[in-house]
Amino acid sequence: MPTGVNRLVVIGASAAGLSAAAKARRNDPGLKITVLEKTDEVSVGLCQLPYLISGYIKEPSEVVAVPVEALREKRGMDVRLHHEVQSIDLTKKKVTFRDLETQKEGEVSYDRLVAATGSRSIRPPIPGLSAPNVFALHSLGEALAIREYVKDRAPKEAVIVGGGYIGLEMAEALTRNGLRVTIVEMLPNVMGTMDDELTELVEDHVREQGVNLLLSSRLDEVRLNQEGCAASVVAGGKEVRADMVLLALGVRPNVELAKAAGIKLGATGAIATDWKQKTSDDSVFAAGDCCESHDLGTDRKVWIPLGSTANKQGKVAGDNLSGGYSVFRGITSTAICKAFEIGIGRVGLTEKEAKKLGLDCESVVVTPRSRAGKCPGARMIRLKLVFERVGGRLLGGQVVGEDGVLARTDVLACSMYHRMTVEEIGRFDLAYAPPFAPAWDPVLVACNLAVKKVKPS
Amino acid sequence: MPTGVNRLVVIGASAAGLSAAAKARRNDPGLKITVLEKTDEVSVGLCQLPYLISGYIKEPSEVVAVPVEALREKRGMDVRLHHEVQSIDLTKKKVTFRDLETQKEGEVSYDRLVAATGSRSIRPPIPGLSAPNVFALHSLGEALAIREYVKDRAPKEAVIVGGGYIGLEMAEALTRNGLRVTIVEMLPNVMGTMDDELTELVEDHVREQGVNLLLSSRLDEVRLNQEGCAASVVAGGKEVRADMVLLALGVRPNVELAKAAGIKLGATGAIATDWKQKTSDDSVFAAGDCCESHDLGTDRKVWIPLGSTANKQGKVAGDNLSGGYSVFRGITSTAICKAFEIGIGRVGLTEKEAKKLGLDCESVVVTPRSRAGKCPGARMIRLKLVFERVGGRLLGGQVVGEDGVLARTDVLACSMYHRMTVEEIGRFDLAYAPPFAPAWDPVLVACNLAVKKVKPS
Repeated sequence: MPTGVNRLVVIGASAAGLSAAAKARRNDPGLKITVLEKTDEVSVGLCQLPYLISGYIKEPSEVVAVPVEALREKRGMDVRLHHEVQSIDLTKKKVTFRDLETQKEGEVSYDRLVAATGSRSIRPPIPGLSAPNVFALHSLGEALAIREYVKDRAPKEAVIVGGGYIGLEMAEALTRNGLRVTIVEMLPNVMGTMDDELTELVEDHVREQGVNLLLSSRLDEVRLNQEGCAASVVAGGKEVRADMVLLALGVRPNVELAKAAGIKLGATGAIATDWKQKTSDDSVFAAGDCCESHDLGTDRKVWIPLGSTANKQGKVAGDNLSGGYSVFRGITSTAICKAFEIGIGRVGLTEKEAKKLGLDCESVVVTPRSRAGKCPGARMIRLKLVFERVGGRLLGGQVVGEDGVLARTDVLACSMYHRMTVEEIGRFDLAYAPPFAPAWDPVLVACNLAVKKVKPS
Repeated sequence: MPTGVNRLVVIGASAAGLSAAAKARRNDPGLKITVLEKTDEVSVGLCQLPYLISGYIKEPSEVVAVPVEALREKRGMDVRLHHEVQSIDLTKKKVTFRDLETQKEGEVSYDRLVAATGSRSIRPPIPGLSAPNVFALHSLGEALAIREYVKDRAPKEAVIVGGGYIGLEMAEALTRNGLRVTIVEMLPNVMGTMDDELTELVEDHVREQGVNLLLSSRLDEVRLNQEGCAASVVAGGKEVRADMVLLALGVRPNVELAKAAGIKLGATGAIATDWKQKTSDDSVFAAGDCCESHDLGTDRKVWIPLGSTANKQGKVAGDNLSGGYSVFRGITSTAICKAFEIGIGRVGLTEKEAKKLGLDCESVVVTPRSRAGKCPGARMIRLKLVFERVGGRLLGGQVVGEDGVLARTDVLACSMYHRMTVEEIGRFDLAYAPPFAPAWDPVLVACNLAVKKVKPS
């Protein structure tokens, strides 16, 4: 243990904060650990919330990784719920908080601080959003409110504003509850984080499942009925009935506390850290949705809030602040999502993103089968690779299909990690047997085609 | 095109030979290509044959990648069936053959030769193996004979000799046809290519599916009835009823022709090549089951006959002999197999193999869930990692489970390709979403545990 580190304060009791606290506890059984959490929720798997609504997950307790009692009793953490941090004093090394139940203020000193303040849902300044049947989904409480509303009020039509990951997952969840779902999306396509060759498959699939897509349509207004509840949504000039509305416009990092304290933010707007997860202040670490990451494939800072990253960053922060040594080298901008039967994976940059960055790139799109011949479970799977025109280094990959999306996304993630060229990726000895993959795996098919477009460097 | 290369002769019309011929044709539309094939089968996906018997694949034509007519008419290849090569003359650059239909001999000159002579089933010198209901499975003809026998004679009990990939796949195929299957295996476990922590899961699973396992039991004899048909099998002193017998004892490389001609074999007993797939003779290339490969993870020559490797080696051979430049750097000893509902994957070395090679290694076994929480489709998945005790470089990985085996096997294959340490693999940004993977992917869980056993180098 480092000399003089006796007290750790963690702001935020979600994946990142608790991973940091748990790692520090394992390194140093004597460390005093205080976790300040604004809400009454700890250790909630936010990514699992849509499945609590769809019914795949039955009990709220199943999305809680470690209950608060276990954190307190088994891991010896002083977890304080309803404690909202008001400010961080880097010089005096203390944080002030307000107990939201008693409204009393207090302060606690730290030797090391972990900012794991997370992110919050974007709520645009649009009329009607404060109606009781307008929901967001970024806490267990919100998930349970949606579940209860659906059960008790039996809404028939739902409007989801935003066609990204959460929007699509919730379109599935609400459809499974018998609702007719309309997705309102400002961009011309759902999944704005993907290129058109991929999103068109996603759109076809969700439409087949009965979802109505209102694309290129900005949310203008939520219209309320006499009881003050949302009754319809106006978007792109059209009015759509809405017995409930879900805002799925994405999230923003909670950086206000850190910023006010003088901790440096990155160009992405999230907290900047080194690869030990240390911030600009030597005693303060950051982890999870509130901080940015290094993208290994493209060598730039990005802000991609994900539970898997939060866990890793938290563990690295917890290790380094308690005498260990770990690094979080970065991410490959890997993400995956399921909408009904279709999987949607990506790594690195899309072609749109690469061109916006001014990169000289080429791309290929292939749509082979996921498994050999007529093996049961074989489906068409579409891959797009984006790569440097000169030399062929992979810049990004996208995968959409009903089968085999995880494996191909992970192979591309490994490829991005190593900054490989399409020629070299094409040499991977990927697993082959007819019930799993064709002799030429879809990744290799895409690479074989890509190689032909590469100019020698 | 290289000067003076006008005529290509290919021995063997399976994956490797035809991949070479196809690539050479694309490079050089004027090349004269002769393909000599001993049987009347071309372009058969051997790995798909068990699924033709299980009924997943209905039509024999579905396991034929390219029909012989297309090879002749569209790709301009002179494909000669029933042509058995008798000898190769490296000095005069010609091969002699016998037309098995007319029994006439002939010869053909080459500028470049591809030996794609494949492999053949092992048949031990044991009494009774020539009975008509004793089968092997290494050609479409054999697959159709088994299918017909099962349909016409309605056998009730089958004995499969050998508990490797084909043995397990055929146990599934025959069970699906209503037969009661016994696997006779000389070793104490099925899947001798895996360690015990994995094979025990496979054994439990196939037993649950009704398969009888006779382990540590050497085949002594196949007993015939009065009609000369197999009626029972004696193995390890026990007699088991057998209305049919399948020999699944593995394969051997067909190297006799090459060896007699003076082409160098490797220590594995298969044909040695450089990474352009050239043999010890400058005009002769080899590809597929008849030749060995370089294992990238362990830097040694291995003989692991697989369709995926055959395709790649053939393509590289075909490119290099027709004026292109390609390399086949090697394999990572990746393999995967499905038996009933269970997937079985491996890369690199098992612990048994590593210890036999005298390597100072450690291992970990983990059995997490394949997907997050209670998501539908989540199953236990077992991973074993074998790695160098000092430094932690991955030596091999094994994966068994009902879900997610392809993705984890492929990630380990990519890791072996890059000779990564368990610490570094643990940093991969693998795809995370509850319906696909837990926030800590099973590969990362295994690496996190493995890191604790690594001594600094």
